[in-house]
Amino acid sequence: MTPSPTPQTPAPPGPAGTACVVVDTGHERYDIRIGRGLLDEPASWSGLPRAAQAVIVTDTTIAPLWAQRLQAALAPAYARVTTVELPDGEEHKDWPALNLVFDHLLRAGCDRKTVLFALGGGVVGDMAGFAAGCYMRGVPFVQVPTTLLAQVDSSVGGKTAINHALGKNMIGLFYQPARVVCDLATLDTLPQRELVAGLAEVIKYGPIADAAFLGWIEDQLEALLARDAGALAHAVRRSCEIKAEVVGQDEREGGLRAILNFGHTFGHAIESGLGYGAWLHGEAVGCGMRMATDLSARLGLVPPATVDRMHRLLERAGLPVRAPALGAARYLELMGRDKKAEAGQVRFVVLETLGRAAVRPAPDEVVARVVEDAARV
Amino acid sequence: MTPSPTPQTPAPPGPAGTACVVVDTGHERYDIRIGRGLLDEPASWSGLPRAAQAVIVTDTTIAPLWAQRLQAALAPAYARVTTVELPDGEEHKDWPALNLVFDHLLRAGCDRKTVLFALGGGVVGDMAGFAAGCYMRGVPFVQVPTTLLAQVDSSVGGKTAINHALGKNMIGLFYQPARVVCDLATLDTLPQRELVAGLAEVIKYGPIADAAFLGWIEDQLEALLARDAGALAHAVRRSCEIKAEVVGQDEREGGLRAILNFGHTFGHAIESGLGYGAWLHGEAVGCGMRMATDLSARLGLVPPATVDRMHRLLERAGLPVRAPALGAARYLELMGRDKKAEAGQVRFVVLETLGRAAVRPAPDEVVARVVEDAARV
Repeated sequence: MTPSPTPQTPAPPGPAGTACVVVDTGHERYDIRIGRGLLDEPASWSGLPRAAQAVIVTDTTIAPLWAQRLQAALAPAYARVTTVELPDGEEHKDWPALNLVFDHLLRAGCDRKTVLFALGGGVVGDMAGFAAGCYMRGVPFVQVPTTLLAQVDSSVGGKTAINHALGKNMIGLFYQPARVVCDLATLDTLPQRELVAGLAEVIKYGPIADAAFLGWIEDQLEALLARDAGALAHAVRRSCEIKAEVVGQDEREGGLRAILNFGHTFGHAIESGLGYGAWLHGEAVGCGMRMATDLSARLGLVPPATVDRMHRLLERAGLPVRAPALGAARYLELMGRDKKAEAGQVRFVVLETLGRAAVRPAPDEVVARVVEDAARV
Repeated sequence: MTPSPTPQTPAPPGPAGTACVVVDTGHERYDIRIGRGLLDEPASWSGLPRAAQAVIVTDTTIAPLWAQRLQAALAPAYARVTTVELPDGEEHKDWPALNLVFDHLLRAGCDRKTVLFALGGGVVGDMAGFAAGCYMRGVPFVQVPTTLLAQVDSSVGGKTAINHALGKNMIGLFYQPARVVCDLATLDTLPQRELVAGLAEVIKYGPIADAAFLGWIEDQLEALLARDAGALAHAVRRSCEIKAEVVGQDEREGGLRAILNFGHTFGHAIESGLGYGAWLHGEAVGCGMRMATDLSARLGLVPPATVDRMHRLLERAGLPVRAPALGAARYLELMGRDKKAEAGQVRFVVLETLGRAAVRPAPDEVVARVVEDAARV
C-alpha cells in the first residue's frame, strides 16, 4: 500500500509528515489521510464532491472543541455549512438521534448532492455514515474521526449502523466514505480513558495480522500512553494499513473481514450484558481479546504463554482483563445474537498463531469455561 | 429484452404463459416473472439464496388473502417461514412500522442470510426492501407485488424508502431484490380504485417511452378496467420491460431514470399537500401527468392536442384530472422539497414528444399557471 492521490482530483501533497493510506474495495477507492493539523489544511478538503451545502454531524462533546475549526475549513468549498449536534454516547446510537440528522437535512433544504462530515468518535461516524447512506437514498460523506478508536478502526471500511434494543449495530449499511481525515491533533482533547480504549483496537491488529507490530506496541506502550506524536502517528498509520488491506479484500465481510472482530463477540456480550455505556467499547474489546486468546489456547491453537502475553499487554495498557461475572448461560445467550452467528451457531474469531486469525465455531462447554475463568483472573 | 434464466440457477420454465423480464444494472441481475398462479408454482421460488429462515413481510389487508399461500409455497425451501404484518397504508410507511420488521427479525433470531419476501403493494415493498437493505447491513429480499401499481412500477428497480414528516420517500436506499414474482391472480382481490390507480403508472410508460404502447392502452382500456387476463398480462409485461430498460441504463437516477417520475413532482405535491392517504399515489400521479403534459405544452414542447389526449385517457380510466386548489404558492413550496430539486431549483419531467421525456427546470410563473388552470378543468 503506497500513498496515492484520490481518484477524483489529484490533491496537492499535504503538509510534511502526512501519511496517506488508500482503501480500494474494487467498487470504491478513497484516501485515509493521517497527520497533525490536517483539519486546518486546505488540501485535506480539496477534490471532494461538490455541492451547495455541507453539513457537519457531531456531538455535544466534540462540537465546542472542533466544530468551529472544521466549519471554517469547509467554508471556502461550500456555499453553506451547517452543524447538527447529536447527544453524546453509545446509548444515543439509535433512531431518535439519527432522525435529528434527517430533521436538520430536510429543514435546511439539503439536496441529494449535500456532503456530510462526521466529526467525532465511532458513534458519530456510524450514525452520520448511516444517515448519509439513507438520506434521499444516498449522499456522500467524509469521516473526520477525533478519537483513537475511530481513527484506527470505525471510520475506515464503511460499516455504519445504529443499535436496536435487541442488539448492537443490528441496523445499518456498508457505505464507504469519500475520504477519511485523521487529524492527530484532535487526540489532544481525548480523555485518557478513551485513549486507552482506542489502544485496544490498535493492539488488535498485532495478533490478527502482524506479530511484529504487536512487538512494536509492547516496546512503545509508554510512549503511546504519553501521547508521543511519532508513536501515535505510526500506530494510526499501521492500523489503517492493515484495516485497508483486509477491507479491500472483503468489503462485505464474506470471510476475511470477520477477523477484525477479534475480541468483539465476547466484547459485545459484555457491553450488552452490562448495558451499553458501563464499559467503553474498547474496554470490552480489550477484555474480549483476552478471552478470545484463551479460547484459542483451549482449542489447542496457541500455547498458554500467548494468553499470558496478551493479558500482560492489556493490563499494562490499563484495559480490563477480568470479565464481568454474568454467568456462562447469559454470555452464550447474548452471543447467540451476534451478526456472525449463522442459524443460531456462534462463530468466534480465534488466533491460529500470533499474527493470523480465523473464524470458527466452538463447543458451548469450552466457551463456558473461558467465560467463567475470565471472571476470576 | 428476451426471457432468460436467473444467473444463480437456471430455473425450469414456468407454467405456460409466464413471461420473464431481466433487469441488469451492471452490478446486479434479476428476473421479473409475470404470470397467473406463480405463487403456487415451485419454479417461482427455486434458485433463490438459501437460508435457514424466510420472513414474509406483508400488511393486515393482504395477509388474510395471500400469506398462507406464500407460506406454504416457501415451506419446502426454508426450515422456518414466519410472517410479520404491518399496518396497512401510506401513513404507516414510517420508522415505527419499519421497526416492527426489525423487532420480528431479531426476536425470531434471524441471521444475516435470512431472505425477506415483500408480499403486498408499494408500501410493503418499499418497507420490506429498506428493512432488508439495513438488517445486519443487508439480507436478500424478493418482491411479490399484489397490486397493479407495485407490479408495474414500485417492485422493480430497487428503490426502497420510508417517509419523513417533512417529505415522502426521503429516507431509503437503492437496494435491488433477488427476484420479482408478479402473480396476476393476486390482482383478482384488488379493489377497483386501486386497479385504476395502478393504471396511472401503466399509462405513464406510453408518453415517456413508447407512443405505440399509449395507443394500445387507449384501445384496450375497457379490457384493462374489466381485468381481462390477456390485457393485464401484456400491460404488466410491457411496463416491466420499459422500466427494466431504464433502470438498467441508470440504476441510481443520475439522469435517464428520472423520466420514470413523469407526473410525480406535481403528484407528490398533491399527496403531501392533502395529507398522505387522501388520494392514492396513482391518482395523484394521474392528475400530475396531466399537469406535466400541460407544462410541456406551455414550454412549447408538445401541441395542446397532446394535453387533450392525455386528459381524455386519464378521465376514461377514472383517474382525477382536476387538481386540488392548494394555491400556486403552496405547490411551489411543496415541490421545492422534491428529491430531483438541486440547490432549491425544481426539475420537472416533461415530454419532448409523445414517447420521449426529459428533465428540466421551468419558470415559477409558468408552473403557477399550470397549477391554477389544473384546479379549474
